[in-house]
Amino acid sequence: MSRIALSDLNAASLDDFVAVLENVVEYSPWIAQEAAARRPFAGINQLHAALMAAIQAAEPEVQLALIRAHPDLANKTQRAAGLTAESTGEQNSAGLDRLSEAEYSAFERVNGAYREKFGFPYIVCVRRHTKDSVLRDFETRLRNIAKTETRRAIEEIARIAALRLDQLVVADDKLKVHGRLSTHVLDNHVGKPGAGIAVELVELASLGESRVIARSVTNADGRTDQPLIGGRPLPIGRYELRFNVGKYYAERNVQLPDPPFLDEIPLRFAISEPEGHYHVPLLVTPWSYSTYRGS
Amino acid sequence: MSRIALSDLNAASLDDFVAVLENVVEYSPWIAQEAAARRPFAGINQLHAALMAAIQAAEPEVQLALIRAHPDLANKTQRAAGLTAESTGEQNSAGLDRLSEAEYSAFERVNGAYREKFGFPYIVCVRRHTKDSVLRDFETRLRNIAKTETRRAIEEIARIAALRLDQLVVADDKLKVHGRLSTHVLDNHVGKPGAGIAVELVELASLGESRVIARSVTNADGRTDQPLIGGRPLPIGRYELRFNVGKYYAERNVQLPDPPFLDEIPLRFAISEPEGHYHVPLLVTPWSYSTYRGS
Amino acid sequence: MSRIALSDLNAASLDDFVAVLENVVEYSPWIAQEAAARRPFAGINQLHAALMAAIQAAEPEVQLALIRAHPDLANKTQRAAGLTAESTGEQNSAGLDRLSEAEYSAFERVNGAYREKFGFPYIVCVRRHTKDSVLRDFETRLRNIAKTETRRAIEEIARIAALRLDQLVVADDKLKVHGRLSTHVLDNHVGKPGAGIAVELVELASLGESRVIARSVTNADGRTDQPLIGGRPLPIGRYELRFNVGKYYAERNVQLPDPPFLDEIPLRFAISEPEGHYHVPLLVTPWSYSTYRGS
Amino acid sequence: MSRIALSDLNAASLDDFVAVLENVVEYSPWIAQEAAARRPFAGINQLHAALMAAIQAAEPEVQLALIRAHPDLANKTQRAAGLTAESTGEQNSAGLDRLSEAEYSAFERVNGAYREKFGFPYIVCVRRHTKDSVLRDFETRLRNIAKTETRRAIEEIARIAALRLDQLVVADDKLKVHGRLSTHVLDNHVGKPGAGIAVELVELASLGESRVIARSVTNADGRTDQPLIGGRPLPIGRYELRFNVGKYYAERNVQLPDPPFLDEIPLRFAISEPEGHYHVPLLVTPWSYSTYRGS
Repeated sequence: MSRIALSDLNAASLDDFVAVLENVVEYSPWIAQEAAARRPFAGINQLHAALMAAIQAAEPEVQLALIRAHPDLANKTQRAAGLTAESTGEQNSAGLDRLSEAEYSAFERVNGAYREKFGFPYIVCVRRHTKDSVLRDFETRLRNIAKTETRRAIEEIARIAALRLDQLVVADDKLKVHGRLSTHVLDNHVGKPGAGIAVELVELASLGESRVIARSVTNADGRTDQPLIGGRPLPIGRYELRFNVGKYYAERNVQLPDPPFLDEIPLRFAISEPEGHYHVPLLVTPWSYSTYRGS
Repeated sequence: MSRIALSDLNAASLDDFVAVLENVVEYSPWIAQEAAARRPFAGINQLHAALMAAIQAAEPEVQLALIRAHPDLANKTQRAAGLTAESTGEQNSAGLDRLSEAEYSAFERVNGAYREKFGFPYIVCVRRHTKDSVLRDFETRLRNIAKTETRRAIEEIARIAALRLDQLVVADDKLKVHGRLSTHVLDNHVGKPGAGIAVELVELASLGESRVIARSVTNADGRTDQPLIGGRPLPIGRYELRFNVGKYYAERNVQLPDPPFLDEIPLRFAISEPEGHYHVPLLVTPWSYSTYRGS
Repeated sequence: MSRIALSDLNAASLDDFVAVLENVVEYSPWIAQEAAARRPFAGINQLHAALMAAIQAAEPEVQLALIRAHPDLANKTQRAAGLTAESTGEQNSAGLDRLSEAEYSAFERVNGAYREKFGFPYIVCVRRHTKDSVLRDFETRLRNIAKTETRRAIEEIARIAALRLDQLVVADDKLKVHGRLSTHVLDNHVGKPGAGIAVELVELASLGESRVIARSVTNADGRTDQPLIGGRPLPIGRYELRFNVGKYYAERNVQLPDPPFLDEIPLRFAISEPEGHYHVPLLVTPWSYSTYRGS
Repeated sequence: MSRIALSDLNAASLDDFVAVLENVVEYSPWIAQEAAARRPFAGINQLHAALMAAIQAAEPEVQLALIRAHPDLANKTQRAAGLTAESTGEQNSAGLDRLSEAEYSAFERVNGAYREKFGFPYIVCVRRHTKDSVLRDFETRLRNIAKTETRRAIEEIARIAALRLDQLVVADDKLKVHGRLSTHVLDNHVGKPGAGIAVELVELASLGESRVIARSVTNADGRTDQPLIGGRPLPIGRYELRFNVGKYYAERNVQLPDPPFLDEIPLRFAISEPEGHYHVPLLVTPWSYSTYRGS
């Protein structure tokens, strides 16, 4: 999809403006309509703020209708009937289109419990989550009172809207919606970057299977050419980086025992800030390693 | 089983001496008989050397008969028919009594290939191995020539004999047959030993299931009260130490994100020297960790 | 000086008991006399507590006289006139017999200021201090009110007495008066202890010269045969451990640049707990090193 | 001095070309003259190669005259009589204009010994050196035979010429004549960059005084805004980076002993590759630290 310049949006007719932004908040063109009156916007952050201000200014029952316009997460019947293209893509990003039966049941159970308690669907910005963290979030939020959850739902709608806006509109400023996960390997045995080391990033799952979500090989700088995750929020969750250092040292004719003391090294860590920069390096010799949260 | 003092063995009748030691080498009282003539022994290492010298001095066909007196590894039929108590205990120590069908098949296949190539059973000191490393050793040794394997078989018989002697005889000196695996946790966040941290030692398996082989909690010194493995050879193989540092820091009211950056920390390493001392410590903060091979 | 068994002290005549202990607190046999009535003592800690209880029970003017019976620190005139052997040894331990003119002046100034403010000499257990930390302590305590300093003086007298008792009396229990500073070198380049590495311990001084207070060479375990400081309190102060790793790696034919990236490695740290155990290790490769406070 | 574009040099008259480049090699316009014939140059590396080719092609006695045209290092008489501006600036960069009497004597002695042995002055690209490393280089090279030293002198002339060219001429490509020394601080106590930490870079001297050659404060990224050394060769020598972490942690209300275990942390290392990238980071908590050669 081609993106539109903010300046063009500022100059567009009301109808065109609304047509572009109507799904930034699910099924709610009225929000774009309200915001249009505040044009021109100096930047995309201002545009986002105007959309959010429209929601904040709405009557409670309108807010509630807005919340109710959202689909359930991982709901087979709703998916069959058709979601907005945006919702479908977002839910797939967290793997909600690849759920096992056990996982479907888990989601169905929490969706039901949530709807029963609050009378509206659980809303979460799924692109900021893994399956695991969505389920944990569900459980935490189920303990809240309704008022808190109305506020939380609108916060999540704001996050969803920010990500959709970022996809739609080009401006001089940026919405802070992306994170970055990177690594590098420093070979302290020779005092140089560890080049040519195979690296895997695994998303760990409590329920269901862990899965490899990125594979790379370190370059001459000991880094991967691309961030392991970049240009999107980092899904909250638990991860493992795996480095094949056994092969690396074997190829460099370092004298090693059989089997080598270190072979595949796993670094296990969690991401809690989807918009953060996480740098998780490996400092290594054939006999030692260390890691830390860098930035 | 009560152990006998070396001085008593030195003073025993020939018959008694042989009765005690006849199974130090599988079904081969003649070896004890030969060695008896060299009494008195100044130490257990000298006694072991005398037993081995008897084997070395034997004619090649006698050596071959000795090798053939040994059972196959993990052979159901032979186990049903009955092994020596010593063999049974040793094979069980490596988990050969807990094989899955797939593992039995793997062992049957390599046993068959080995017997076919060399005309005698594959002998290995199983107490120095995990299932994984036995299978790797099999494959390596299958590539040897017969002469090499005869020599290797006798080396392994010497190791088995040393471990059996160590169980049977008390002397002032010690056979070097035991290794030690230990850990400790240093909490660099507060500059103190990490006390009260749950630790698991997992034996990793390529074929079949990895399994927890030790569980402990660090004491006030950040160490485990007992070595994770001690008083026996360290089985060659791949391991993972897992430390529950998330719970540790949460209980100490350290400000942590949700989920915490570090929760369960796995340290993955291999043991290649069964008689070695491996110290695998964890230096940790809520944001970093390191390990190294200590001793 | 030969030490006396606590059991003998328990059985001694009053005169003998007092004769042995009269200088445990400077020039104050009355304290031993009071304590004698509480015999027998189950341990040396109980004996020490009895001596201290005698001081606590004394009238304020008696306590003040006791404090006044102590000499000034580093006072030339008093030294010339003669101190107790105990005081002389203690003051020398902190280097107070090796003061430069500038240092003498510094001590004279603070001694004068302290006496003028409080009307009694500044008392400190010098064996727990370096020259630097004595001067810092002086400055801190000069800001106190007289009541606080009376209490502090008696605390220091208790510490001095504990150290003197420890020298004089043998018992089953120990007074907690000794600390220990140790190190070890782990060579992560080869996964073994760093053996044969020259180590120096330097006491850093703000005023005057830093000086080497221990020299050693690491043994096969990468440790020094003796603790760097042991069997005495660790003087509060700033230190540097210096390891000659350039020579160590050069002798092991590791390929190094000229000059090597790492040659003499200084680890700089401070000791604040004289009775603590400080373990300050060096984990090293030719390209990296780390240290931490261990115990 | 304004720099000239390579394209302009390519288009210049022979006289102008020579006028610009005549001192790239000390007092030797004939070299520029020879090189001019090879115009146009595609890049500055090609220009440098042409100048060096002219030297290589010259007769031995011409080469010797070229070598002899160079001044002695740190020679008071020659300095008084006047060196080229280039030589003066270069010698000053290594501190040769700030020599103590003892250092002058040391240089005079080695200069004399060198001239006596070889009949020509010792030539070195001083911008790649500290005083210490010049004296070490002197001693190493004094042991060579004359033929080796003629070759070494021309190598050093090539390095001096490269640095002078880099100052004079702007081109699309770059001569590899600059190095970079950088640092950063990672605070593993809080999992964030260590911001606001005072850092000093000290050049260590064997003879004479060590001196602070850069001071900085870490920024929000835990880095210094500028490299500690950049835009020039890194002088071969021994250095110490000093980080004031005691103040940093004290200001963050971390509970610390008095004195703090770590206060000023020195990282001591040597530079051997003037054109290299050295990254010397500090990973730190109030109780531990580590460093490594990064890049």
